[in-house]
Amino acid sequence: MTAAVHASALHPLDDALALSVTAPGRYTARTSPAYWNMVGPFGGVTAAVLLQAVMRHPDRLGDPLSLTVNYAGAIAEGEFTVQADPVRTNRSTQHWTLSVLQAGPDGAPVVTTTATAVTAARRETWSLPDTPMPETPGPEGLERITRGLPVRWLDRYDLRLVKGGIPQRWDGGGDNSLSQVWMRDEPQRPLDFCALAALADVFFPRVWLRRARQVPAGTVSLTVYFHAGRDPLAETGTGHLLGQARAQEFRNGFFDQTVQLWNQGGTMLASSHQIVYYKE
Amino acid sequence: MTAAVHASALHPLDDALALSVTAPGRYTARTSPAYWNMVGPFGGVTAAVLLQAVMRHPDRLGDPLSLTVNYAGAIAEGEFTVQADPVRTNRSTQHWTLSVLQAGPDGAPVVTTTATAVTAARRETWSLPDTPMPETPGPEGLERITRGLPVRWLDRYDLRLVKGGIPQRWDGGGDNSLSQVWMRDEPQRPLDFCALAALADVFFPRVWLRRARQVPAGTVSLTVYFHAGRDPLAETGTGHLLGQARAQEFRNGFFDQTVQLWNQGGTMLASSHQIVYYKE
Repeated sequence: MTAAVHASALHPLDDALALSVTAPGRYTARTSPAYWNMVGPFGGVTAAVLLQAVMRHPDRLGDPLSLTVNYAGAIAEGEFTVQADPVRTNRSTQHWTLSVLQAGPDGAPVVTTTATAVTAARRETWSLPDTPMPETPGPEGLERITRGLPVRWLDRYDLRLVKGGIPQRWDGGGDNSLSQVWMRDEPQRPLDFCALAALADVFFPRVWLRRARQVPAGTVSLTVYFHAGRDPLAETGTGHLLGQARAQEFRNGFFDQTVQLWNQGGTMLASSHQIVYYKE
Repeated sequence: MTAAVHASALHPLDDALALSVTAPGRYTARTSPAYWNMVGPFGGVTAAVLLQAVMRHPDRLGDPLSLTVNYAGAIAEGEFTVQADPVRTNRSTQHWTLSVLQAGPDGAPVVTTTATAVTAARRETWSLPDTPMPETPGPEGLERITRGLPVRWLDRYDLRLVKGGIPQRWDGGGDNSLSQVWMRDEPQRPLDFCALAALADVFFPRVWLRRARQVPAGTVSLTVYFHAGRDPLAETGTGHLLGQARAQEFRNGFFDQTVQLWNQGGTMLASSHQIVYYKE
């Protein structure tokens, strides 16, 4: 009975981040229907699972500083293996190599995702925000986006559009690639590093916005830099983050996206970048 | 005699990129005095050597799309080992894991650098530059920076400052983190992917500019997105690139840097990001 109550109370993200330890740095995980995208899990939740493998490792030093995830192939529904190895530990930084493996058609393990991460002990130093949060209306007065795309994981986010939403008409009339969106987990969940990593990937493909044309697109590589330690994350709690995304270059089937995420107090919690495949 | 002439004619970057194959994807390289930084090689040239290990691999598919290099520890003067493994090959993309190893004090190999890369076959698609090159004076009318830092690798670049140079006085009077610099290899060398990866890392630490204070600083993780295929690189030839760098956030001992590189024709060849350690 207690177990059942506990299970039903588990936040969907915590369910997606559940890892069974099979050996030090070796875990079994399961894809989560709640975060399903079109042909595999939402890329943000895969990034979060990889970071969770670091967070759970007994030898971890410090907190996340950077995470790069390369999406080599779709993860199929079901079990997968996560590997996290601290390959070098310095006095204040630690370097990780990570991967996701899954049994392929012939049963042999196939790499679906490669990644690296750096964790670091944060210190008190001179600090300065050099990119102020843009002035926007707060999330309170904005409605949650309900119209959207037919993918399950979008229901797991409370997104409130400031500007640059999914085009109302796919008429080729786009004129810029900038989006600003207030975002948080749905249901609400206190922010942690894994949730922050996932939030860095919630933006729909910039090519859809810039072209007002919906072509197939998917992230190839994602990098997240964490600018905040545990205290600013705890202070952020369940509050919305303001996320800003734009592209810099669309060329020969790939575009880049730069992202900044601030909490409502105006503290930049993360910056992020990705390179994304698009067709046509 | 022919060999001696050939050796003397080798560009210093090609010398630094020289790899001896010991097995498929296993190479021996040597640090290059011409690209020496303070306690190890210039980080840009280490990125270039890792990318060269991909370029030289017989199983490579396509051209570089993204490269992430994590600087785990300084490479000591002398020989080091480079490993490059294509862990997944799709129809049009290929995913690589990379590392640099070097014998530690007890002779056992130590990881100095981890990296991942993605190569891809480029296709003709709708394409659009979304971040125009800033209007600046061209490189012809600007003098090459000769005053600088006492590090050897800076002599290997022809750098012409538009704005945001190394502060004349370390008086704490900095007010922004933006630099624009025309740059090319010195001596001149036709641009290729490896040289482009190195150029993404030539900017001095943003914390020096923003604070007008010279504190110890070093790159922890660098990512380069390649927006151009072979033809735009060949067209760029030995021309200068305009590089632009700025920071977004300085916090608790780490700041990020965003970079764009355009050729003189205004084509963005690469965008890049790094997270950098600083002291105090």
